[in-house]
Amino acid sequence: MTATDNLSAELLAELRRAPTADTDAAAAVSERAANILRPAGALARLDQLAVWIAAWQRTAAPSVERPAAVIFAGDHGVVAEGVSAYPPDVTAAMVETFNEGVASVSAIAHVAGAAVHVVDVGVGRPTGNLRIEPALTSERFVECFDAGREAARQTDADLLIVGEMGIGNTTAASAICMALLGDSHPADIFTGPGTGVDAAALANKRNVVADAVARLGAVRDPFTVMREVGGSELVAMAGAYAEARLRSVPVLLDGYIATAAALALHRLDADFLSNARAGHRSAEPGHRAVLDHMELTPLLDLDLRLGEASGAMAAVPLVQMGCRLVTHVPTFAERFGTGAP
Amino acid sequence: MTATDNLSAELLAELRRAPTADTDAAAAVSERAANILRPAGALARLDQLAVWIAAWQRTAAPSVERPAAVIFAGDHGVVAEGVSAYPPDVTAAMVETFNEGVASVSAIAHVAGAAVHVVDVGVGRPTGNLRIEPALTSERFVECFDAGREAARQTDADLLIVGEMGIGNTTAASAICMALLGDSHPADIFTGPGTGVDAAALANKRNVVADAVARLGAVRDPFTVMREVGGSELVAMAGAYAEARLRSVPVLLDGYIATAAALALHRLDADFLSNARAGHRSAEPGHRAVLDHMELTPLLDLDLRLGEASGAMAAVPLVQMGCRLVTHVPTFAERFGTGAP
Repeated sequence: MTATDNLSAELLAELRRAPTADTDAAAAVSERAANILRPAGALARLDQLAVWIAAWQRTAAPSVERPAAVIFAGDHGVVAEGVSAYPPDVTAAMVETFNEGVASVSAIAHVAGAAVHVVDVGVGRPTGNLRIEPALTSERFVECFDAGREAARQTDADLLIVGEMGIGNTTAASAICMALLGDSHPADIFTGPGTGVDAAALANKRNVVADAVARLGAVRDPFTVMREVGGSELVAMAGAYAEARLRSVPVLLDGYIATAAALALHRLDADFLSNARAGHRSAEPGHRAVLDHMELTPLLDLDLRLGEASGAMAAVPLVQMGCRLVTHVPTFAERFGTGAP
Repeated sequence: MTATDNLSAELLAELRRAPTADTDAAAAVSERAANILRPAGALARLDQLAVWIAAWQRTAAPSVERPAAVIFAGDHGVVAEGVSAYPPDVTAAMVETFNEGVASVSAIAHVAGAAVHVVDVGVGRPTGNLRIEPALTSERFVECFDAGREAARQTDADLLIVGEMGIGNTTAASAICMALLGDSHPADIFTGPGTGVDAAALANKRNVVADAVARLGAVRDPFTVMREVGGSELVAMAGAYAEARLRSVPVLLDGYIATAAALALHRLDADFLSNARAGHRSAEPGHRAVLDHMELTPLLDLDLRLGEASGAMAAVPLVQMGCRLVTHVPTFAERFGTGAP
């Protein structure tokens, strides 16, 4: 047994002991939504958000009062391959802007009334170059995964978003998704322009990803894939998702990188993501494929491609609205003393 | 000259005197967005919202602090044809819920921090049955249009949503859209299930709309079309849009009925809607056709079909985020003393 095998086995055992969705709370909200003072189904997509939140908050009165993003940051050895339009020191510079509350996600979170936490899991400590060597040792993998769990535990969020910052990390996300879904999709779909590279750089990026996946041989174990071709922040994100699921906290997924980390956990056991919904679909072409695979329908589809939890954060007010639409609008019976017409 | 001809002529003269978009403010925001501390274009759809708001608020520091919906309510004689799943007295009952702040739109507006105003332009005073007779007299048309202008004037909104409540009004909206766009689209596209009618009722509704449009003969003058086959709240909505444009207030369009009223004004002169963007695309099939005709791309596409300003209200936080993303995030130069890489 390797360290990741042990971690997988222990995590699956924890999942078996964790509560599943509160179907009573979900049914109560679903029933109430059907009788609320509006035509049945007129706001179905928003009603479904309230049902989802109710199921994982374990209450028939769902609400999102403490939304929070945890952003994990780390550096990537694969930047040596010229896969990013930005130099690697941008990772550290952006972490400062998150901490000072002046990043793009900070502006979005202000409108949503959400907190933003940043956790450094590898800034200035780049991973191995995933094209030619394992991104992480087993020890680093476990360390990052546990850091992700710990961060999720500390947020006390009633709706959690897991974000990332790491120059080069769309390459790692592409490699994870291609390794895990490549058998059923054309290879090029998984590697897109990220934050913006030109055609020549994109061709190079695709070669890097193909080499990384080739290096895996027949290995498809999700945690081994993440350790070999992922990155510190991707592993931490998976840890945060796992912790949120085990603690019954609803999760709103961000973009391609965030969804790649979720996919690895989903491959270990899809039930780890049963508390998650998709906040948005990004411009990155692989994101659609992964969301489709996970049977998730995004709330927003605005061609955003920033990462750092921004797209999911933009969708938080919709979740808040969905909850309030069942908790603060009367039913036909409450209003008129009779059922829906 | 009829009363609506006079009104059209005077309105067009006012439009000629009204300020056009503030291109300096828009250019300043566009320039700033291109240099802000994120990859160029990564949040383009949100940046464009800030540029739009800047152009009509006439400031390089756009913000949405006083969003408001004005909901116009009226009754429809065409309900005698069995076109709605709901009895006509629901219009008055819903107006009460708006005034008490317990309607669905009230819950959504609470999250968005927006005001909701309701203006009765014909509750308990149903229009003529548009299948067989003019919906409104010329006098009522002018009265409703002016009531719409006055309501928009009084809101002091920095982002205006125009909503409606009126049992039977998807039939009126369908007739307006079919009359104005029917030459280039299949007839059935304009008449959908509204808040929910079955297949037989939908077939009947399509016959009612076809009869109404046939009754117009060759008449395609937009205000005459609205007077003949529209309704009091639809005319008031057009008045509110016109006033918002003349006062340079940005407008976020709601669903099919709200867009049908906008279409009539757009047909009089497309410049009346140059300050408008689409908040959402509803489940009603005609909405897509009208938005496409007006070259508007919706922010949300969640199959909502409630009306009462709800869909556009759900999109208000996105506009607030777009503004804050250019006003409260530094540029590369502000942060690092150098331009974007």
